[in-house]
Amino acid sequence: MSVYLHDIPLSEAINRFHSELEKVGLWKVLSSEIIPLDEDAAGRVLVEPVWAKISSPHYHASAMDGYAVFASSTLGAQPSNPITLQVRVKPDSKELGNACYLDTGESLPMGFDAVIPIENIEALDNKGRITDSIRKTKAIRIRAGVTPWSHIRSMGEDIVQTQLVMPAGQILRPADLGAIAVAGHESVIVAVKPRVAILPTGNELVQLGSELKTGGILEFNSIMLAAQIKDWGGVPTRFPITRDNFKLICNRVARAAKEFDLIILNAGSSAGSEDFSAKVVKQLGILLVHGVAVRPGHPVILGIINIDGNLSGEQKQLSSTRCVPIIGVPGYPVSTMLTSELFMEPLIAKWTGRRSNTYPVTQAILTRKITSPGGDDDYIRVVVGKVGERVLAAPLVRGAGAISSLAHADGIMVLPRGIQGVEAGDTVSVSLYRPESELEKTIFCIGSHDMTLDLLAQFLAGRNRRFSSANVGSMGGLIALNRSEAHLAGSHLLDPETGEYNLAYIQQYINKVPVNLYGFVEREQGLMVETGNPKGIMSLKDLGKPGIRFINRQRGAGTRVLLDYHLAKNKIPESSILGYQQEEFTHLGVAAAVASGRADCGLGIPAAALSLKLDFIPLFHETYQLVIPKVYAESDLLGPLFEVLNDNDFHTMVLNMPGYKVNQMGILMAEIKK
Amino acid sequence: MSVYLHDIPLSEAINRFHSELEKVGLWKVLSSEIIPLDEDAAGRVLVEPVWAKISSPHYHASAMDGYAVFASSTLGAQPSNPITLQVRVKPDSKELGNACYLDTGESLPMGFDAVIPIENIEALDNKGRITDSIRKTKAIRIRAGVTPWSHIRSMGEDIVQTQLVMPAGQILRPADLGAIAVAGHESVIVAVKPRVAILPTGNELVQLGSELKTGGILEFNSIMLAAQIKDWGGVPTRFPITRDNFKLICNRVARAAKEFDLIILNAGSSAGSEDFSAKVVKQLGILLVHGVAVRPGHPVILGIINIDGNLSGEQKQLSSTRCVPIIGVPGYPVSTMLTSELFMEPLIAKWTGRRSNTYPVTQAILTRKITSPGGDDDYIRVVVGKVGERVLAAPLVRGAGAISSLAHADGIMVLPRGIQGVEAGDTVSVSLYRPESELEKTIFCIGSHDMTLDLLAQFLAGRNRRFSSANVGSMGGLIALNRSEAHLAGSHLLDPETGEYNLAYIQQYINKVPVNLYGFVEREQGLMVETGNPKGIMSLKDLGKPGIRFINRQRGAGTRVLLDYHLAKNKIPESSILGYQQEEFTHLGVAAAVASGRADCGLGIPAAALSLKLDFIPLFHETYQLVIPKVYAESDLLGPLFEVLNDNDFHTMVLNMPGYKVNQMGILMAEIKK
Repeated sequence: MSVYLHDIPLSEAINRFHSELEKVGLWKVLSSEIIPLDEDAAGRVLVEPVWAKISSPHYHASAMDGYAVFASSTLGAQPSNPITLQVRVKPDSKELGNACYLDTGESLPMGFDAVIPIENIEALDNKGRITDSIRKTKAIRIRAGVTPWSHIRSMGEDIVQTQLVMPAGQILRPADLGAIAVAGHESVIVAVKPRVAILPTGNELVQLGSELKTGGILEFNSIMLAAQIKDWGGVPTRFPITRDNFKLICNRVARAAKEFDLIILNAGSSAGSEDFSAKVVKQLGILLVHGVAVRPGHPVILGIINIDGNLSGEQKQLSSTRCVPIIGVPGYPVSTMLTSELFMEPLIAKWTGRRSNTYPVTQAILTRKITSPGGDDDYIRVVVGKVGERVLAAPLVRGAGAISSLAHADGIMVLPRGIQGVEAGDTVSVSLYRPESELEKTIFCIGSHDMTLDLLAQFLAGRNRRFSSANVGSMGGLIALNRSEAHLAGSHLLDPETGEYNLAYIQQYINKVPVNLYGFVEREQGLMVETGNPKGIMSLKDLGKPGIRFINRQRGAGTRVLLDYHLAKNKIPESSILGYQQEEFTHLGVAAAVASGRADCGLGIPAAALSLKLDFIPLFHETYQLVIPKVYAESDLLGPLFEVLNDNDFHTMVLNMPGYKVNQMGILMAEIKK
Repeated sequence: MSVYLHDIPLSEAINRFHSELEKVGLWKVLSSEIIPLDEDAAGRVLVEPVWAKISSPHYHASAMDGYAVFASSTLGAQPSNPITLQVRVKPDSKELGNACYLDTGESLPMGFDAVIPIENIEALDNKGRITDSIRKTKAIRIRAGVTPWSHIRSMGEDIVQTQLVMPAGQILRPADLGAIAVAGHESVIVAVKPRVAILPTGNELVQLGSELKTGGILEFNSIMLAAQIKDWGGVPTRFPITRDNFKLICNRVARAAKEFDLIILNAGSSAGSEDFSAKVVKQLGILLVHGVAVRPGHPVILGIINIDGNLSGEQKQLSSTRCVPIIGVPGYPVSTMLTSELFMEPLIAKWTGRRSNTYPVTQAILTRKITSPGGDDDYIRVVVGKVGERVLAAPLVRGAGAISSLAHADGIMVLPRGIQGVEAGDTVSVSLYRPESELEKTIFCIGSHDMTLDLLAQFLAGRNRRFSSANVGSMGGLIALNRSEAHLAGSHLLDPETGEYNLAYIQQYINKVPVNLYGFVEREQGLMVETGNPKGIMSLKDLGKPGIRFINRQRGAGTRVLLDYHLAKNKIPESSILGYQQEEFTHLGVAAAVASGRADCGLGIPAAALSLKLDFIPLFHETYQLVIPKVYAESDLLGPLFEVLNDNDFHTMVLNMPGYKVNQMGILMAEIKK
C-alpha cells in the first residue's frame, strides 16, 4: 500500500479512506442497541426495519359518538318514514334492542356493522318523548338508512399486522414514534452513537477564558467540532490541549484509541504542527493520506490507528477488531470545519446508518469575479440574497482564519480543480446552509459601511428579517442597485460641484431603475489617531508631514471621496501622503490599523475611534443616506426596515453613538424616476 | 371577555390566545440564562446580540511560515539582482539583521511590515551556503521585493472589536460558537428552555407495553408530543395517564401549573373526553377558546391557568406572575400532532426568542380530486414525488386516527375554509416535511399492491432511494403512467381473451409513453378464510351460498379482474354474492376484514392470509409485473431498483413468503413502443 504524502484530489482521498475502512470492517453501521421508544428515540436512526406486530385499529372502532346498528335494520328509513330502534344498555347482553350507544373509539359490539352519529338520530325516553340524556334514551328514531361499515374505523384501517411500518435507515421523527408504538412496539433498534475524541494540539493554543497574549490562539475549534459531532449523531469528548510534544501526543492518541471509535487530532495552524500529527499516526498505525487538494483545508491527515500501538514498518497489518480511524484536521478554523464536514460527517453517517447530509442546492448569480489557483477544489463561502426573482451570491473573505465569514455564510460554492475563476454575472451552484425559505426574508444591502448598519441588523432580526450587508463602498452600492443586485444601498457621496450628497451620483450611475432617496444619519468625519495623539496631528495638512503614516479607504468609498475633495480644496497632493495607497474597506478596519500601530492616522467616524479607544479629531460633517429602488421601498420585505427607521428605541441607540444625528432618518428626500 | 365555545376560525383562535398571553406578559422571551460556550450552546437561541470584545486576529499575525522583513529593504530585489538579509534570532533583540523567522500564526515583531513565505527565499548558513535547516539559517537571499503587509493577517482582519458578531434571535450553529469565542466571549446569553408538562387523560388509555384489550388505546401521544417539544427547544415532562375524573385532573393540572411554563392536556379521543378538559380550564383559570375550525383537530382548547387555582366567575383577573397557558389537544394522534404544531410551536418559538418554524413550500400537481366540507381549514397529508420535471402530490388517507399517514407523509397542504375541493391535475402548494432534495431520490410507484413492495422499499432504503407507493389498483397505475404521474406501476391484469397478463391493457391504456414490461413475481391467488374454515368454503361457487359474507377488492384491481374473469367463466352472477360491493384496497385490508370477522372470505394472496393467521384456499396462479416507462428504466434514479431485482438476498426474502416465485424477476418481457 502506497502512502500519499502530497496533496491528492479530494475524491481520491475519500476513496482511499473508505476502502481502507472497508477492509478492516469499519465502513458499515458500527453497532446497534435497543432503546425504549419513550427515551430520546427521536432523531436516532433505525438499524432494523419495523414491521407491524399488531393492526391499528386493533379492533373495529366507532369513529363517532353514536349508535351502533345493524345496517340491514335501517334500510328504508326516510324523513317521512322514520324507523325506531330499541336501545340495548349492555352491548353484549342477550337483551332485546338493535342499537347501542358508543363513544368515539369504543369497540363495535359483535354483530353490529354500522354507526349512526348522535347528531343524526332522535333520542327517545321510556315514554317515547325526545330526550337529551343518553342515560334516559331507550330508543332512537332514524330518518335515513346507513350502509354497512359507515362511521367505523375498521380493524387494520391504518396499519395491518405484518406490513412495513418504517424502513431501516429512517431518522426517527416525532410522528414516526407514534406509528411504531401503534404497530405494537415499545422499543426500537437504532445505531449506537459513535464516541469521538477531539484532541487539540499546539503550543500556541490557549484555553478559552485564559489570558490572551500576543501570539496566543484561543482554542475553540474543539467546541465547534463537538457541536458538529453532536449534530451528526455522535458523542463528542473534548480533551485538554496537548503541547507540541511527540511523546505526549502519542500517549494521548494511543489511550484515546482504546476508548473511542474515532479520533480527531486538531493540529495547530502552523505548518510544522501537522507534521507532528503525521508522525504520530505513522507511529501508531498507518498514514493513508497526508494533504488533500482542497482549499481551505490542505493539510488533512487520514489514517488508521492500531490500538495495540506497537506496530511499525511496512509490514503492518491492521485487524478489524483493533482499528480506530484518525483524522488530522488543520488548525485554521475554517479549514477545521470544512475538512470535518468532508471526512468526518460521511463516516458518522455511515456508522449510524443514515445517509450523508446534503445541503439544498440553488442556482445563483455571482456578484463579483473570483479566481482560484486552479489546483484545488476551492470552497468559497458566500452570502446569498434574493433580489426580485434573481438569487445572488456574494463571495465572502476567503482566509482560512476568517471564522466570522463561516458564521455569516449563507452557503458555499465549489470551484472544482482545474477551473481558475468565474466571472461576475455567471450562474453558479450554491449549497445552502440555511433553508431556501429564509432567503425570502433576507434584506440584501450593499454599499458604504456605517456602524449603525450593525444596529439596524440587530433591530431587523427582531422583526423577522435578516439584514445581510456587503461593504463595497458608496459607488459600488449604486452600481449594484443599477444592476438590480441589492434591495438598498447606503451612500454618502459628496458632489464637489454642488456640495450636495448622492443625487448627482445617482443620476450618473443609476439609469435602469427608479429609486427613492431616504435620510438615514448625519455623522462627523475626522481623523482617528493613537490615544494622546503622540504625533500631534491636527488637520489634513499634517498628513503630508514626514513620518506620518496614513491608512486610506478604498476607491469608491464615500470617505475616500470626502478625503479627495478636501485634499483638492486644500491643494495637498496625494503623493505627499505616506500610506495613501494602503486601503481598508471599513471604518473599523481603519481604526484597527491605527490601534495596532500599522498607521498613525486615518479618516473615519468617531464611533469607530471610540470603539477602539482612539482619539478623534473632528473635521467635517456629512450625510449618510439610503438609496432604495421604488419597487422595494414599497415591498413587504422592507416594511420592517421602515418600522425600524421610525422606532424611537433605534433612534436612541444611534444617538448614543458619538457624532451621530438622526434628524432626517426615514424621511423621503427625493424620488428619482430614472 | 367573551368565551368562544364553538369552532372559530384558526386565525381568530391564534389571535385571541396570543393577545391574552400578551396581556399577562407571556408573549415574549420567557427568561434568559448565561451558559458557557462549551456546554451545549449549539442549538440554543441568543437573547442578546453578541458584540466583539476583542479583534481577531488580536495582533498582526504571519499568514505563512516565512520571514518577517521590512518591505522597504526588499525593494529592488530581482532574479538577477538578489538581496541578502541578515536574520535575527530573537525578534525583539537589538541584534542586527532585518529578517526574522515566523511560524504561521506567530506575531509580527514590532517594526516589521511584511512576510516572505519560506518557499520564496534561499536560506544561507553562516558560511553563505544554502541550507535546509531553519536553525542554521543566518541570512536569506530574495529575488523579488514584497509590498507592505504581504502575507500578514492584520489585526481585526476577521473581526474588529465592538462590531456586531451575531444578532439576537440567532440559533447557534457550530461555526457561530467559534465566531463568538474568537470575539472574546466564553459564554452566551440564551433563552431558557420552557418546561412543558404533558398530561394524557382518558379511561381508554393504556400505557405502552401493557396488555392491549379491545377498546383500549395505547397512550403514545405523549411520546410524540415530548419529541416535538424537544425539537422545538422545550423540556418536556410526561405525566402518567390520568383517568377521566374531574377532581384528579384538576389536582394534577393545578400542581403542574406551579412547576411548569406550559401545560398540554391531551384528552382522550372521545367527544366526551375533552369536555373534562374544558371544565378543568374553567375551574382553574380562563377558557379562551373551545373548538377551532381546523380539520383534523376541531376540539382544541386554549386557556390560561391562574396558579392560585381558586378564582372563578366572570370577574376573574389574571396576573402576569401567576399565569400558565394550557392547551387542550385532541386525542386522535393526527389531530394531536397538527394542533400542537399550530398552537404550541409558535408559543415555544416566541418564548425562546426564535422565529416560528416554516416548512419549505413547493408547488405540486394533485394526483386525485379531494373534497372538503368547506367549513374548516382542511390539512391534508400528501405523498410527494418528482416524476420527470413535475412534482406530484398524492393525498393520503385523511382519518384523524391514521398516524401511519402522518409518518408516511412527505408534506401537508391546506384547503382553506370556504373551498370545497380541488380537482386532480390542479396545482397546489405543499409544505414539505422533508428536504426538497430528498424528492430527487424518491421512486414514485403507483398501481397494484403486493406485499413484496414493502420488502422492495426496505431494500431500496439501503441503496439511498425512498420507495413511495400509492395503491390504486393495476389499472389506476397504468392510467397514472400514461399521465406521467409515476416512475413505475405494479400490474397483474389478466386479459380474458388471451389469458396473457398486462400487454393488452398496456396497449389500451398507455398511448403517450413508451414503456418496458419487466417480470417481478408469480404468485398464488386464493380465498382467505377464518382459521379452521368454519363455513367450509372450498371454491368460488361457495361465494353465492346463503350466509357467506364476501369482501371484495376495488374496481380496477388486478385481483378484482381475476375474480370477475373466473366468475364469468363459472357463470356465477355478482348479485348472488353478499358483500360483492364491499371494497378493500389492499390484500392485507381484505385479510384484516376476514380476521376481524367483518367478512367470511375474500380473494387474495397467501402471504396476506398467513400474516394474519388465516387459512388459505389456493385457486389460481397469476403474474405480477412491473411496467416502467423507458425513460425511467434507463435513469439513475431507478438503477438501484434493478440492482435489488437482481439481488439474491432479495430473492431469498421473497421466496420465504408463501406462494411466491421469482423466476422472471427483473427480466425484460416486452418493449411497448406506444
